[in-house]
Amino acid sequence: MPGAFIKSIRSRIDARLSSYLAEKREFAARMGDSRATLVDAITELTMRGGKRLRPAVVYAAHSAVTGRDDIDAVIDVGASLELLQTYLLIHDDWMDEDSERRGGPTVHVALAREVGNAHLGNSLAILAGDLASTYAWDLLVQGARAAGRLDETIDAFRQMQEEVVLGQELDIRASLAVERMQDLKTGSYTVRGPLQIGALLGGADSDLIASLMKFGQPLGVAFQLRDDLLGTFGDPKATGKGRGGDLRKGRQNAIMLEAHRSLSRSQRSVLDRVFGRADATTDELEVATQMLIDSGVQARVEARLATLFHEAELALADPRLKEPGTSRLRELSVLIAQRDR
Amino acid sequence: MPGAFIKSIRSRIDARLSSYLAEKREFAARMGDSRATLVDAITELTMRGGKRLRPAVVYAAHSAVTGRDDIDAVIDVGASLELLQTYLLIHDDWMDEDSERRGGPTVHVALAREVGNAHLGNSLAILAGDLASTYAWDLLVQGARAAGRLDETIDAFRQMQEEVVLGQELDIRASLAVERMQDLKTGSYTVRGPLQIGALLGGADSDLIASLMKFGQPLGVAFQLRDDLLGTFGDPKATGKGRGGDLRKGRQNAIMLEAHRSLSRSQRSVLDRVFGRADATTDELEVATQMLIDSGVQARVEARLATLFHEAELALADPRLKEPGTSRLRELSVLIAQRDR
Repeated sequence: MPGAFIKSIRSRIDARLSSYLAEKREFAARMGDSRATLVDAITELTMRGGKRLRPAVVYAAHSAVTGRDDIDAVIDVGASLELLQTYLLIHDDWMDEDSERRGGPTVHVALAREVGNAHLGNSLAILAGDLASTYAWDLLVQGARAAGRLDETIDAFRQMQEEVVLGQELDIRASLAVERMQDLKTGSYTVRGPLQIGALLGGADSDLIASLMKFGQPLGVAFQLRDDLLGTFGDPKATGKGRGGDLRKGRQNAIMLEAHRSLSRSQRSVLDRVFGRADATTDELEVATQMLIDSGVQARVEARLATLFHEAELALADPRLKEPGTSRLRELSVLIAQRDR
Repeated sequence: MPGAFIKSIRSRIDARLSSYLAEKREFAARMGDSRATLVDAITELTMRGGKRLRPAVVYAAHSAVTGRDDIDAVIDVGASLELLQTYLLIHDDWMDEDSERRGGPTVHVALAREVGNAHLGNSLAILAGDLASTYAWDLLVQGARAAGRLDETIDAFRQMQEEVVLGQELDIRASLAVERMQDLKTGSYTVRGPLQIGALLGGADSDLIASLMKFGQPLGVAFQLRDDLLGTFGDPKATGKGRGGDLRKGRQNAIMLEAHRSLSRSQRSVLDRVFGRADATTDELEVATQMLIDSGVQARVEARLATLFHEAELALADPRLKEPGTSRLRELSVLIAQRDR
């Protein structure tokens, strides 16, 4: 059954996150805020869904390098990446003024409601992100130390964060360097970073890591293309975000890049009516979305995704990569390229 | 000449920060934003003043543990603490809606002006803080690794940040747990944390660190008391912040704590006219400040500071502490307790 291993990783990661955050809640209540507002906000978002994709990537890379099927060895580091994700989502959602995430309110919206004051709620959200970042470091250090690989792992973890921030800057400034932005913002900490960290935990040398990057680089771009496709054409019930959100927000993404390349002037004017307009109606969004389908924009982005997926698959032929890791990596690439949320 | 060593540390730290940030600017311009907006904002604030007190504490603790006078050994870690400070100041200033810092505009104010959009400017400022945090980790790791003490140092560095965030939460919620808040928010990363990290870099065991904390704990509180005194009674030209800012902002601090304890009802009403009122006039602030002097509030806070200072001095009698470190620590405690900015 494809992806069965992801379920067991997911439940192990959830259990670790749960026990870790309970510990931290106790510490915060004793040291700081007895209501533990920040830890509760972190817990709420972290435990409300999340695909746990990054821990699965860490596990698969570790397995492909060591030839072992050892979930224990990657739990803390996997949980660390989920907390890093929590930190980044909280800050990003505030920057993007998004109100929904994982089928519930974003953290800044929930906190502003709780304290009855927008700026205080926003400030608490930024602090919750800052706190989640220290938790991510904590679990990274614990996991890497237990594996005897602290020194090797730590730079990759940090570098990944530096890239994410630079990518996020390009994103909020609506940079037209869309592919660079996506590689920095998403590719780095969704695919390349977790692959590298999992491989380093398993003792990979730099040659083997370079080979894994030939798998991770195209797959990271494919992940983001799928994200962009879902952000425009996806089912809000599955994605947990409002439909057409990327269009309404005026997000420069792979769909818009393709639209700029290939649409006629009159087709573009249909897009212009909704792009970056918070007040666009559902009907107008529907018309624009349908036009992107009819004009072949969607199909061309899907085709590019398929090419990248194929490129990633080919990289798995490296004979130094071991089972069951190689199969796990293959299953993950299918999941990443074909997910519906 | 007391404090001469601080000048040489300051110039070494400034040089290291300067070269490190130039490297990072180059990386950011190549990878992300060619204008390097975030790195420039970080550089601007980091290089515009700053007492470099924390690096001096790291150096003195290292010297007290090793008996060596080795500035080289602590430069990267010291510079790391300055970048951590940059990160925290950027986020705090936005939360506090402060417009001045170190005699210039705060980062969110400068960036909002630059891009002509408040929310985008605020978002870029939060990102600049996030980026500075990754730089702080980078230099910490480089410095600790060079000293062969990565494993020992890393937890202290992380723990300190966790405490700072919990303390900042208490601060922005105007918690009445003022001493707890100040110990978490300021004591941790201004005195206790740098002492501990410097000592760990020098190879201290946990007993010796516990002994250094008997010096650092009261001194951390003393640092904050001086900060509170300067925030109410200080000269804006020296502090680089608006006079009476803490009163106007409605900041719960040691002055207010003492005022609550000892003022009469009519005296308190003078305070109430300015406390937390952005529209309080300079005259009203002057009257309230003078009342705090005449009623002995200022003198009682000064007396408590003197007691804490004395307590810290006594802790330096531990015979395991070595020269020239012990003298350096003593000079720093004088500077911390008596500074005018």
